[in-house]
Amino acid sequence: MSKISVLGLGAMGSALAATLLRNGHSVTVWNRTPARAEPLAAAGARIAASPADAMADADLAILCVVDYAAARAVLEEAEGALAGRDLVNLTNGTPRDAQELADWVAAKGAAYLDGGIMAIPPMIGEAGALILYSGSTALFELHKPSLLALAEGRFLGEDPGRAALYDLALLSGMYGLFSGFLHAGALVTSSGAGMSDFLTLLLPWLEAMSRTLPDLAGKIDSGLHDRDVVSNLAMQTIALENIVRASREQDVAPDFINAMRRLAAMRVDQGHGGDDISGVIELIRREK
Amino acid sequence: MSKISVLGLGAMGSALAATLLRNGHSVTVWNRTPARAEPLAAAGARIAASPADAMADADLAILCVVDYAAARAVLEEAEGALAGRDLVNLTNGTPRDAQELADWVAAKGAAYLDGGIMAIPPMIGEAGALILYSGSTALFELHKPSLLALAEGRFLGEDPGRAALYDLALLSGMYGLFSGFLHAGALVTSSGAGMSDFLTLLLPWLEAMSRTLPDLAGKIDSGLHDRDVVSNLAMQTIALENIVRASREQDVAPDFINAMRRLAAMRVDQGHGGDDISGVIELIRREK
Repeated sequence: MSKISVLGLGAMGSALAATLLRNGHSVTVWNRTPARAEPLAAAGARIAASPADAMADADLAILCVVDYAAARAVLEEAEGALAGRDLVNLTNGTPRDAQELADWVAAKGAAYLDGGIMAIPPMIGEAGALILYSGSTALFELHKPSLLALAEGRFLGEDPGRAALYDLALLSGMYGLFSGFLHAGALVTSSGAGMSDFLTLLLPWLEAMSRTLPDLAGKIDSGLHDRDVVSNLAMQTIALENIVRASREQDVAPDFINAMRRLAAMRVDQGHGGDDISGVIELIRREK
Repeated sequence: MSKISVLGLGAMGSALAATLLRNGHSVTVWNRTPARAEPLAAAGARIAASPADAMADADLAILCVVDYAAARAVLEEAEGALAGRDLVNLTNGTPRDAQELADWVAAKGAAYLDGGIMAIPPMIGEAGALILYSGSTALFELHKPSLLALAEGRFLGEDPGRAALYDLALLSGMYGLFSGFLHAGALVTSSGAGMSDFLTLLLPWLEAMSRTLPDLAGKIDSGLHDRDVVSNLAMQTIALENIVRASREQDVAPDFINAMRRLAAMRVDQGHGGDDISGVIELIRREK
């Protein structure tokens, strides 16, 4: 079993450390406010006196703090102890955050793997949790057994920013789902109907509509938004206008539907009324 | 078998009429431009000379046109033939559109059922198609066998606007799903990665996140957004800010994520940082 240090003991860091302890590892923990370490010490963890102490002879150090500024601050305190270490950073941030920290860590002589946790703390060590990784392939391969005990793992390549990008993209998908759910909920409950009852219609509908996503993804990858279109944007803008009108009738703010309505109408105005809705992506991304 | 008239022969009206013919009904069709009626006449339909002719001795008349203004225009032409008729209107509109037309039709002495079609034309008569109905219970019960041959049916009560409300609410859910998908797609493809490949992560993630909707629906129905919160809004606003920052880094317009970020931050500012995301609904709906 490995000597693993966990730096940052919020709900997520604590869940990571507890799971590693349950898996028989020799676990060292550090947190800026030491009280968070006590339950883990009671379960067998060693409490480190400082980030440098936590890093000192760890086979693997796992960092899980609130943002990259905090991550950088912790690592600067451990600067002298970084050379030759293996560091996994599971802090949520952007691709650029990850790339910049990876460069800084590399300059100190440590191997770096960035990760995005697609789970809430109670899911750690349980089925259904997923962690996306990118950065050092060698680090991932060496520590795979320890990492896969935390959650299912998916290695996305050597670009250290890739895991953060995919993490935030998955969250974007989730926030879209939640936005649609809340707008639907505001419409339905404004008439006095219950949301739980409405779900018996919404859940199978969303499942059916999810089955259209592979076709839309293929159109995005090929750029051919006008092939085999079953419901074109010109038709869809009528429905989008009706949703906005109905929202006004029901005293529901149209915030969550307005962006799609505006972009769909713009795309129709540009001559793409016969295209599929996948083409709206061309209005929100620019070639780098 | 019944004598059924279909008024309006766009892709959807034509699919409805063809399905009724296949089910052995005596079908009369009418369309403002008569050419659309010819394939149906070849399949055995009678072509009516006018809306009034189509309505004359129909057991059931089904109207399916582009909007409620068009529906009203067609019905005004058939005004003298409406008394005693059973009318189902499957045109897409708002609850108020449906309520106003129901009142007008009732004044002419006809029974009225409004419907929202949750399907594309090729799905009519096939498994998976759903039509929401509301309005006259007696009309729905009498013509159930004919209507259920078109699609699965769900009767939502006597308020003629209810079907339109649920239809647009389901579409709102779908557009949320599509918005999240397109924003995720813009982020992922901006890095050169493929969208079809990314779907192997996104689809199971969306399915997992859909399983949290019953809990959020319960919070909306009870108004208790602070019970059993696993990921509170204060934490989620950090992720939302990261998505917006990452979008800027990747040259992706943040249209689809900005409404949620703004409303989540507003809710946190109002002192609800410990609540669940369900509470955002309070910012988009007002008591009627």
